[in-house]
Amino acid sequence: MGFADLRERVLDANLALGRAGLVVLTFGNASAVDREAGVVAIKPSGVPYDRLTAADITVVDLATGAIVDGETRPSSDTPTHLALFRAWSDVGGVAHTHSAFATSWAQARREIPCLGTTHADHFDGAVPVTRGLTPGEIEGDYERETGEVIIETLAASGCEPLDMPAVLVASHGPFTWGASAEEAVENAIALEAVAASAYRAVTLAGELEAIPPELLRKHFSRKHGATAYYGQPA
Amino acid sequence: MGFADLRERVLDANLALGRAGLVVLTFGNASAVDREAGVVAIKPSGVPYDRLTAADITVVDLATGAIVDGETRPSSDTPTHLALFRAWSDVGGVAHTHSAFATSWAQARREIPCLGTTHADHFDGAVPVTRGLTPGEIEGDYERETGEVIIETLAASGCEPLDMPAVLVASHGPFTWGASAEEAVENAIALEAVAASAYRAVTLAGELEAIPPELLRKHFSRKHGATAYYGQPA
Amino acid sequence: MGFADLRERVLDANLALGRAGLVVLTFGNASAVDREAGVVAIKPSGVPYDRLTAADITVVDLATGAIVDGETRPSSDTPTHLALFRAWSDVGGVAHTHSAFATSWAQARREIPCLGTTHADHFDGAVPVTRGLTPGEIEGDYERETGEVIIETLAASGCEPLDMPAVLVASHGPFTWGASAEEAVENAIALEAVAASAYRAVTLAGELEAIPPELLRKHFSRKHGATAYYGQPA
Amino acid sequence: MGFADLRERVLDANLALGRAGLVVLTFGNASAVDREAGVVAIKPSGVPYDRLTAADITVVDLATGAIVDGETRPSSDTPTHLALFRAWSDVGGVAHTHSAFATSWAQARREIPCLGTTHADHFDGAVPVTRGLTPGEIEGDYERETGEVIIETLAASGCEPLDMPAVLVASHGPFTWGASAEEAVENAIALEAVAASAYRAVTLAGELEAIPPELLRKHFSRKHGATAYYGQPA
Repeated sequence: MGFADLRERVLDANLALGRAGLVVLTFGNASAVDREAGVVAIKPSGVPYDRLTAADITVVDLATGAIVDGETRPSSDTPTHLALFRAWSDVGGVAHTHSAFATSWAQARREIPCLGTTHADHFDGAVPVTRGLTPGEIEGDYERETGEVIIETLAASGCEPLDMPAVLVASHGPFTWGASAEEAVENAIALEAVAASAYRAVTLAGELEAIPPELLRKHFSRKHGATAYYGQPA
Repeated sequence: MGFADLRERVLDANLALGRAGLVVLTFGNASAVDREAGVVAIKPSGVPYDRLTAADITVVDLATGAIVDGETRPSSDTPTHLALFRAWSDVGGVAHTHSAFATSWAQARREIPCLGTTHADHFDGAVPVTRGLTPGEIEGDYERETGEVIIETLAASGCEPLDMPAVLVASHGPFTWGASAEEAVENAIALEAVAASAYRAVTLAGELEAIPPELLRKHFSRKHGATAYYGQPA
Repeated sequence: MGFADLRERVLDANLALGRAGLVVLTFGNASAVDREAGVVAIKPSGVPYDRLTAADITVVDLATGAIVDGETRPSSDTPTHLALFRAWSDVGGVAHTHSAFATSWAQARREIPCLGTTHADHFDGAVPVTRGLTPGEIEGDYERETGEVIIETLAASGCEPLDMPAVLVASHGPFTWGASAEEAVENAIALEAVAASAYRAVTLAGELEAIPPELLRKHFSRKHGATAYYGQPA
Repeated sequence: MGFADLRERVLDANLALGRAGLVVLTFGNASAVDREAGVVAIKPSGVPYDRLTAADITVVDLATGAIVDGETRPSSDTPTHLALFRAWSDVGGVAHTHSAFATSWAQARREIPCLGTTHADHFDGAVPVTRGLTPGEIEGDYERETGEVIIETLAASGCEPLDMPAVLVASHGPFTWGASAEEAVENAIALEAVAASAYRAVTLAGELEAIPPELLRKHFSRKHGATAYYGQPA
């Protein structure tokens, strides 16, 4: 069995989703890409988090989705992950959850407005929601089409993938990503916190204006890009 | 003391309800049927989850409800469980909780609309709510009548029991079931997640349309029936 | 140091409030009466739950409130507990929490309507809320007056103390009681579950009618009085 | 490495924020001042709570913000803490969280009305919310300006810092303080409980009047000032 490091990182990312309370039962999954080897490691389909081991992680071909290594059937959402990895060359990890508040925004088919600095620390504007899939997309290659509509939605937002590392799939739930699987999970945790705050702010006070652009810019650039000063020097 | 396997499975199912946070105090109960032996094993009445042992599980006759084995009084909801097992020959386990969000929908006497794919993964449409029981039903054989109104409600939904493994009893709470007690508990966990998402989606955005039928069909059939491709091969 | 048994029971009841998540910081307190000895044991004022030992429990005189045994200052709410014990001879324990949802109903100055069977299992109708205290009552013997307004509110409800073992103090929070301190804590847990369900039912569906009287009667009498059949035989 | 005691107290305060569930990821920070030495110890920037040790705590100069001791970059919010310590000579500790409900009020840009006695026990009136920062303040010395607007808001409330130990920064989140870092954390915990109760009371019942001044006065003075009788004698 190869790809030991990649498997370990993907195992850790999936277990971190569970520890953060973002998944119940067998819902959700995290993956990482090894671009040199041309493979993606991902959670197997339908295996409970508390029994998951590195040996269960499935390794598939980035281009074709064929199983390269492992004896488990990969997550049924694998074609969605592959579509994102193929479209976005700087993304190293993807996470999908049915986390409580983010899923509620997805079910309400509403973008999450940027109402505070926690949001701005992680997402460069409102977190967009996809259009619904067409009957043809649903009946066709459904999971790949889910990836395509995420890509389409991100493109329409005008953001780069690492500046807006989350999209809500309408009537479904959130996908997040990052430079690594660990970052994808961090963004899933941040998204859920942001979705929860925004839910309560809106149910408390009705429709609210987004924060002013200079405050969004200030907080996003505190943590991202050349002028970032949050965190320890690398 | 007989039925050791059956008792263990029913103990596990009841403890799983507690671990999932679906019950407080002594509320809730799970049961399993052994159709060959013609018996049902169920949680005893009023025993706290943290003191429950396999020896406490009560075994009653499927047809008459008489205690067959065990020294405890069975759950006061036993006649409800028996009615469901008698009506539905492919059901192997039943669970009843007062879980937080599902109970709130039951108290609001509203069905839970299918607003997302997590819902569609488990329930083939809106989760129905019963009519209120009549004074005669309440004053008569109340717990059996509760079972009858669940059966009536499921029949009216046009679904098979394993395709719609949950009904909300109006002003009371959810009952779920499955091919086994373990599946009944899984459906109780899924129902609570679905009830919570739907509560927040509706309080956020007002009345929402159900997801389109092709999306419901796609997700339900990913996990159920001949064309299922979710999970590992059996 | 005397009253070892009484102290232990009161310690257990206070720790159970903490385990059930009904208190934060040093909020809340539970007490028990020993009517033969004419004393009440209660949590000391301002001591965190995680440092509480049986030796910290204060024992005071039922009639006068004077410290009988112990080196700690009793809870500042002691005069409220004493007023309830004096007024209601069948009450053995009292609990006071600032539990999340019950406190919200108290702050909204609304009774909790009986919307479901969990409510009816524990409380024989809507859980009443007191009137606000007058300036004179607040500036006078405030904690004793808090007890008097609870007694006045229960009397106005027409219920016996053990049939309605909870009252919400307006703008403050819930007091619960029972035949023992353990029962008082159980009622505090049940009240919080009931308050949470009712909050969500009402925010989901607007004003809701109480359950019909025959359903209230059925559930309350399943667990209480001569015809009770819930739980194990004594 | 010096300031061992100060570091330990600040470490404890930061870990207490985590245990109380007030922070996720690396959000939030707590600090303490040593006025004799003229230094402030504070959480380092971007270090996860579960890896934090006393050696990671950064010690900076109270007047200039320059690092005095430690090898880590201090929290990016350090200039906010310093501004508060400089303005308020009786404040010994400051805490900043993105706690769930308090952040939602901040995002709704609403003060938290005093709706109950838990609120009155800790905060001498409504917890104020700042105005939004101007573009100039955001683009200038942003974190120091955040401190200045907190100071301005507290002054406008007419309260002394230790009588109103919390302000919500609009579109951001809460800052709390106290005579020590431990008290600052206690006030952060109390604020979150108060914010949660008030959220549910207002979403349940609409706009609510604050409690009468005599009840606010009674509860605040039970715990604060010369006539306090809550807690154990010092």
